[in-house]
Amino acid sequence: MFVDVLGSVAGAITAFTFLPQVIKTWKEKSAKDISLSMFMIAASNNILWIVYGILKSDWVIILTNAAVFSMAVTMIVLKFRYNK
Amino acid sequence: MFVDVLGSVAGAITAFTFLPQVIKTWKEKSAKDISLSMFMIAASNNILWIVYGILKSDWVIILTNAAVFSMAVTMIVLKFRYNK
Repeated sequence: MFVDVLGSVAGAITAFTFLPQVIKTWKEKSAKDISLSMFMIAASNNILWIVYGILKSDWVIILTNAAVFSMAVTMIVLKFRYNK
Repeated sequence: MFVDVLGSVAGAITAFTFLPQVIKTWKEKSAKDISLSMFMIAASNNILWIVYGILKSDWVIILTNAAVFSMAVTMIVLKFRYNK
């Protein structure tokens, strides 16, 4: 029981890992120090996890990685826009 | 069979998600645009996942999150050091 709650909490936090960086970059309009390749690798990896989740019919994996994917793509857009 | 290979590949990539950012910040000695709270949340979340992996005796989860944790902590140190 405790371990399932722990997994759900950790999964929920994982889904929003990139959110603080999205907010900071959005506010400060500066992304020079941000690694584009990190977010490109992360976004591609999320796609692998989403396919994995579909094959396993595991909605937690699908939804967690869809959330991370949307934020990784947002960071890629912000990086191109505010790369000065 | 394919799904297990997919999971291992995705897991291995996940372990090194932060590596491009660590390398970029290490080289450029500039971390002004980096979100400290993202890496602090990530590091704490990795600890949750490591405990989860221990309780489930799942070495993949333990090792993947130990790798991410070490890079998140490295980024926290680099952020304090190069926050100009």
